[in-house]
Amino acid sequence: MAHIALPEGLPGIRGPMAFRPETAKPLNDLVNVLLHEPHSLSAGERELIATYVSSQNDCYFCQTIHGAIAAHHLGGDGELVQSVKHDFGQARISEKLKALLIIAGKVQKGGKYVTSEDVGRARKEGATDLEIHDTVLIAAVFCMCNRYVDGLATWAPEGPEYYRERAPIVAEEGYRASVRT
Amino acid sequence: MAHIALPEGLPGIRGPMAFRPETAKPLNDLVNVLLHEPHSLSAGERELIATYVSSQNDCYFCQTIHGAIAAHHLGGDGELVQSVKHDFGQARISEKLKALLIIAGKVQKGGKYVTSEDVGRARKEGATDLEIHDTVLIAAVFCMCNRYVDGLATWAPEGPEYYRERAPIVAEEGYRASVRT
Repeated sequence: MAHIALPEGLPGIRGPMAFRPETAKPLNDLVNVLLHEPHSLSAGERELIATYVSSQNDCYFCQTIHGAIAAHHLGGDGELVQSVKHDFGQARISEKLKALLIIAGKVQKGGKYVTSEDVGRARKEGATDLEIHDTVLIAAVFCMCNRYVDGLATWAPEGPEYYRERAPIVAEEGYRASVRT
Repeated sequence: MAHIALPEGLPGIRGPMAFRPETAKPLNDLVNVLLHEPHSLSAGERELIATYVSSQNDCYFCQTIHGAIAAHHLGGDGELVQSVKHDFGQARISEKLKALLIIAGKVQKGGKYVTSEDVGRARKEGATDLEIHDTVLIAAVFCMCNRYVDGLATWAPEGPEYYRERAPIVAEEGYRASVRT
């Protein structure tokens, strides 16, 4: 049971978002810019960063829904998502994305863990300042969302059905539509 | 030196905010709702939560600017801000705020550290569901902001002058005005 009385039937972050629409709006606007709007990193790559950070924070709802959205963007390749979560160094992803995931993993531990060498490596693999900035901010945003979801003890469906059904809707409509039931 | 090329002369979060106005807008909107808009918790109390979490994350810029804004709201009582940062259990604040700071401190470590007992204690001291929700979200938001500021290695003025000068402007105008130079 969640720590506060939340609207029923809405899993994960959607319960507190319905409880407090004043904060849900800027939260969704922020995530929409970072994960959904046009970008030099693909939506699949950005969702992988969000999924990886959420798995490092052990947030079941966030890693499962963003993993499903990532898989949707990646042509249904759920295996790739799992491999990024478990050992991205060995995953079938670009060297640039691996370098960005190293930065994201450092941000998850704390901002000061990111070194000039980490950033230099990403830049050597072709990452732009905007891509480095957005990687840091995506990782930071999911450190927020994961704490929001778990700090209120929200519930999350266990099986994959909910996430599989919801993923294509979010992938196509974006996050501004995500407070709809 | 920051990890990416940021506009010069803007300390802390203000550099990356000027670099990426598309994300700065929802970030400022979110913080404005949580810390500046009318609320059953005073602006001083909410700024103390932000300051405490930022100090736990060892983010110099955030704990210093929000500490200065908290002090401004609290009639210039910088000593109270210091006592909350160092040992809030002994600080001259309400038992309700102490109970909310316990929750905020747990969120800083990770959402799952928050227990029903922590929430029960806050409720016993008179905290409402909205106050508990906003405490969790303020703590989560500052886990994001601290990582954003330090993950990009932004610079921060060392001495107190910048913060003392800036605090009353933010305290009065709110966060939507904070991207102005």
